[in-house]
Amino acid sequence: MNSFGQKLQFSTFGESHGTALGCLLDGVPAGLKIDEEYIQSELDRRKPGKSEFETARKEADKVEILSGVFEGLSTGTPIAMIIYNTNQKSRDYTNIKDVFRPGHADFTYFHKYGLRDYRGGGRSSARETAARVAAGAIAKLMLQSLDIDVMSGISEVHGIKSENFNYADAKNSIIYALDKEKEQAQKDAILKAKNNHDSVGGVSRVVIKGTPKGLGQPLYYKLDAVLADAMMGINAVKAVEIGDGIFSATTLGSQNNDAIRAEGFESNHAGGILGGISNGEDIVLNVYFKPTPSIFKSQHTVTTQNEEVDFELKGRHDPCVAIRGTVVCESMAALVIADMLLLNMGSNMNGVTKYYK
Amino acid sequence: MNSFGQKLQFSTFGESHGTALGCLLDGVPAGLKIDEEYIQSELDRRKPGKSEFETARKEADKVEILSGVFEGLSTGTPIAMIIYNTNQKSRDYTNIKDVFRPGHADFTYFHKYGLRDYRGGGRSSARETAARVAAGAIAKLMLQSLDIDVMSGISEVHGIKSENFNYADAKNSIIYALDKEKEQAQKDAILKAKNNHDSVGGVSRVVIKGTPKGLGQPLYYKLDAVLADAMMGINAVKAVEIGDGIFSATTLGSQNNDAIRAEGFESNHAGGILGGISNGEDIVLNVYFKPTPSIFKSQHTVTTQNEEVDFELKGRHDPCVAIRGTVVCESMAALVIADMLLLNMGSNMNGVTKYYK
Amino acid sequence: MNSFGQKLQFSTFGESHGTALGCLLDGVPAGLKIDEEYIQSELDRRKPGKSEFETARKEADKVEILSGVFEGLSTGTPIAMIIYNTNQKSRDYTNIKDVFRPGHADFTYFHKYGLRDYRGGGRSSARETAARVAAGAIAKLMLQSLDIDVMSGISEVHGIKSENFNYADAKNSIIYALDKEKEQAQKDAILKAKNNHDSVGGVSRVVIKGTPKGLGQPLYYKLDAVLADAMMGINAVKAVEIGDGIFSATTLGSQNNDAIRAEGFESNHAGGILGGISNGEDIVLNVYFKPTPSIFKSQHTVTTQNEEVDFELKGRHDPCVAIRGTVVCESMAALVIADMLLLNMGSNMNGVTKYYK
Amino acid sequence: MNSFGQKLQFSTFGESHGTALGCLLDGVPAGLKIDEEYIQSELDRRKPGKSEFETARKEADKVEILSGVFEGLSTGTPIAMIIYNTNQKSRDYTNIKDVFRPGHADFTYFHKYGLRDYRGGGRSSARETAARVAAGAIAKLMLQSLDIDVMSGISEVHGIKSENFNYADAKNSIIYALDKEKEQAQKDAILKAKNNHDSVGGVSRVVIKGTPKGLGQPLYYKLDAVLADAMMGINAVKAVEIGDGIFSATTLGSQNNDAIRAEGFESNHAGGILGGISNGEDIVLNVYFKPTPSIFKSQHTVTTQNEEVDFELKGRHDPCVAIRGTVVCESMAALVIADMLLLNMGSNMNGVTKYYK
Repeated sequence: MNSFGQKLQFSTFGESHGTALGCLLDGVPAGLKIDEEYIQSELDRRKPGKSEFETARKEADKVEILSGVFEGLSTGTPIAMIIYNTNQKSRDYTNIKDVFRPGHADFTYFHKYGLRDYRGGGRSSARETAARVAAGAIAKLMLQSLDIDVMSGISEVHGIKSENFNYADAKNSIIYALDKEKEQAQKDAILKAKNNHDSVGGVSRVVIKGTPKGLGQPLYYKLDAVLADAMMGINAVKAVEIGDGIFSATTLGSQNNDAIRAEGFESNHAGGILGGISNGEDIVLNVYFKPTPSIFKSQHTVTTQNEEVDFELKGRHDPCVAIRGTVVCESMAALVIADMLLLNMGSNMNGVTKYYK
Repeated sequence: MNSFGQKLQFSTFGESHGTALGCLLDGVPAGLKIDEEYIQSELDRRKPGKSEFETARKEADKVEILSGVFEGLSTGTPIAMIIYNTNQKSRDYTNIKDVFRPGHADFTYFHKYGLRDYRGGGRSSARETAARVAAGAIAKLMLQSLDIDVMSGISEVHGIKSENFNYADAKNSIIYALDKEKEQAQKDAILKAKNNHDSVGGVSRVVIKGTPKGLGQPLYYKLDAVLADAMMGINAVKAVEIGDGIFSATTLGSQNNDAIRAEGFESNHAGGILGGISNGEDIVLNVYFKPTPSIFKSQHTVTTQNEEVDFELKGRHDPCVAIRGTVVCESMAALVIADMLLLNMGSNMNGVTKYYK
Repeated sequence: MNSFGQKLQFSTFGESHGTALGCLLDGVPAGLKIDEEYIQSELDRRKPGKSEFETARKEADKVEILSGVFEGLSTGTPIAMIIYNTNQKSRDYTNIKDVFRPGHADFTYFHKYGLRDYRGGGRSSARETAARVAAGAIAKLMLQSLDIDVMSGISEVHGIKSENFNYADAKNSIIYALDKEKEQAQKDAILKAKNNHDSVGGVSRVVIKGTPKGLGQPLYYKLDAVLADAMMGINAVKAVEIGDGIFSATTLGSQNNDAIRAEGFESNHAGGILGGISNGEDIVLNVYFKPTPSIFKSQHTVTTQNEEVDFELKGRHDPCVAIRGTVVCESMAALVIADMLLLNMGSNMNGVTKYYK
Repeated sequence: MNSFGQKLQFSTFGESHGTALGCLLDGVPAGLKIDEEYIQSELDRRKPGKSEFETARKEADKVEILSGVFEGLSTGTPIAMIIYNTNQKSRDYTNIKDVFRPGHADFTYFHKYGLRDYRGGGRSSARETAARVAAGAIAKLMLQSLDIDVMSGISEVHGIKSENFNYADAKNSIIYALDKEKEQAQKDAILKAKNNHDSVGGVSRVVIKGTPKGLGQPLYYKLDAVLADAMMGINAVKAVEIGDGIFSATTLGSQNNDAIRAEGFESNHAGGILGGISNGEDIVLNVYFKPTPSIFKSQHTVTTQNEEVDFELKGRHDPCVAIRGTVVCESMAALVIADMLLLNMGSNMNGVTKYYK
């Protein structure tokens, strides 16, 4: 239940304030060049404390590979990666030891497991997503060798929507903004909330270019369904769209269908997926993040003894969890596509016969 | 890849115009009273041909249980159910034999599998969802015995939104409309599109009442992630929201957090799920369906030889696939919750010890 | 829990005396020629009532394909197969309704599920293995197209061991005897037990020829481990050996190691598997069946109320379950190898790149 | 493919001569007291270099818990454990860099993955089993809290069979001998082989006491089948028996059936499992290990270039891999039983209703 994927499967471990977190990535084909600097650079994109738009908690998020790589190449055996926690502070969580923070998983974990790991959210903390980014970086290396690119950026903050989606700009923006024209307003919204001890929601847009036709395993491991699973499982995500998504529910079939020509599709309302299988067009997702629940205003809540209290959180938290979240969306998308590539390899006898004969 | 669920798992088989379709439902606890009339009544809610708002194809969708039930009770062994196709007409698909219908899975299946089952979409047809409803009906029986209710209705058609959500009304509405005030306008939109040889999109809203706290298996089998997977995998679905969903991305943390009181939550922006685990409040989903791709206007497309043609579909199709789709959403939701109930039983040693000692 | 395999997965349903039994086979690559006569011929090898060495229950075991095949080819979608029960007699089980037959699963199913399907063993009956043979036949068709052969025969009955293993002879023997010289003595042992209202054990030997090097997914889906799982799960099996098996535990390393030469191995003590991965030599298994527990002598047992009784079974049963069991061993072996072939296809980047570029 | 188990699942990573090895154990119910000293004591039983009957390689095999435990209790989240390799010597493997050791996985890994991790067998080394023992120790803690005991010992070395099975004696024996009367002869056989630069095979016997009736998930996750899978997957294992095993294939039904009385079974030929489900009697397994393939005599083999060579291994290896292997058998058995306990918890509605109402 802490694993994701079928043929390329990763499992993560670790808590926000434990010794270490990490992942096992199983199913990486042997012979993939493992560029450790690239993996670290992906972690650096997600790591906290890079700017005023993020939590002040500083973590080096230095990743170490423990297994599965020999002389720079994957060996086909599980790749274990570990990240030690270095900046957990015990005072961070003393004031939440007995109360459930509204909007957090504290309440539900306690009721499920019957005990409380109160250290900064424990396992439910978004800190765990560092492990996903490490795994995702290796998936990206595999995709790059097949000329598939996964990109993303922030398309919306607190209702301020991008009108252009420039993924190169996003890469260079401290808030991964897709639209330079909107970036300042989006930054202002984040800081305004932060200064009010509040937080804001936002939207990540992910695009995957270069996927071959045929990825996705119908009917219960469809590409869109698995992407939805992958995205909805990221901390704070409350909605996922493929292609035109919600808008498509308001249109006519004659507007929404993508006509087909010899060289490809005339439009891409479908977001690159038909019947749960990739059609060769860009795969497009929008991922909606709620505002960080960790705010510093007084809120109604209860204790583990179900006593009502007014509670004011202390500590260090992201004012807009979508920002760093977009890197996680990319990583999860890369892991899904890589898994689907491997799963697709026995779809028809032509492929099987060619492989073995 | 044609199976869904972990502890309660169903697998489906069958094509739109094949001999039969059906499902295996594995993991149903022994001793559940299997009410066959109820199962049939659920299938009747989804079956085609009931009104002018649906396809004219008539199917009795008579379900037969082949195994797993003895003397009216589940035995703990797989429950196989079969539905014979009775009204497939060969002329339905003669004009699509060599062309890919825009918006359909024809194109992608052909590229994945290297061959074409052109009979009405074959496996990719929404006809397969009858099998999900059969499985879902048994999941509902299990949930009912634990006082959990899964309900749904249509909240929007072609942009006409419900303002009230009355699930009892929806049950009695021929289009499963949640808002009586909007029902006529929604019906008109469907018929207008139909008369123009076109189709419309719509939205299903699902609510689950009575779930205990603690359902959902973090971190990669979270309740919201699995619901998203389940819903996005339904034919024509392009977006899924939990609770406030997309709206939550535009709000502040102080608005979106649900304050907690001794007797429960003060609001339910979260849609009943925190950290991927149920919190005891109603679980709320919105599921967005694109317009049926099967329209009867001329469209650009290509043949299996990649020759460009203008193509006009013949046949019988739903003008708004969301209508019958809402029954499928309910079924999938029920299957997810039932699976999660079973998976949750081992979460802590207190439960394990009580069970075995 | 009623499914087996990863990439090629089959699920079975049905009870000994229910309406029907069958299987779903998921993951068959599209484009495989499905020879229905061959499938039936495999079922005919397993079906009961062919001779005095088998149960007198006669079943046509006529298999029907319900889905997944179009115009004679697999489509890549689940292949559902159904076999209706035709010769279940209610009187067969009236005398066992309330008592647990020694050596049977009656006792354990009752304690696990809390109820009793007393009709001839219900789900636990070896009748279910007909569904495995149907699935296995399709796996064999796939293997044959890749020049891989799965063969088997009876190597031992009641301690009478074969000294030669002739798989062609086995195919033509009514008891699938591998050694013509021993066949009569083995038959005599079966009939002697039968005439004494008793039963005998036996051993099936399975060989798989032509497997490529590299099949098996270490470390927890090793080829030998999965074969052991597959064989031990067959009704009445109590031991499984790979290659020299038990004998190897008595030898020296210098005797047991298979030396390697440029053209292959000098011996095959390993039974074709090293480190859980095929080495290109014949894969060899021995599968040990206990005597059929259904005997017609008086035995001590208890009722469902835990009252002690002396019990004498009536009905029709195989005097040596290994005979028809060897066909099931073959089928399971074929399913394992086919699954492993598909799983192996993403083992290294050379293969992946060749496939997609 | 490097994971085992369904509800209690462990995954391992690491190579013989890499930085570290370890495991993730997922699905441990929250609230289990985690006794780290006990875990270490189990590792100490398996660790190498304790006597002349084992390899001279010394490893502390010090285990560290990285996650999933808080204030001495399991939290319900994945328990990661790590063991750093401390005594790998590069000279150990310089002479095997280009040759395949007969009887080893070198040959098959190379053909599967297309490259060679020649450092002491890499992932295929039995060193990985340390991670299984760590996971198994936690499974044992869970079982102990439910009064279930898993015990084992060596019943045979090089054909010298135990006549008594005393598990307490085995625990105190340096070769885990079950029969004190045979221990010296067994030791002599090991040393004789060792002095001849050779190795010997052996047999581990495992018994599980106190399992409730009803464990095992038919039909494809049967208790005996999963135990066979678990045992056959251990390095060097070539055969697995349940209960009377191979002997039962030579007997009559009237001899092999275990008669039932009100207070239990009159005998235990079945080894505690009927129809793949535990019957409440002791579960009994025999696990057959081939001689360690690492011997120091000259052998025929080939290089990675397929050149024939005569090869003499250097290094440090166990003269009888069964000895330390028996600890691994115990661990795997404990993991299987713990998994089955959790899986069994939703078998019937009585249990489900009691849990939730």
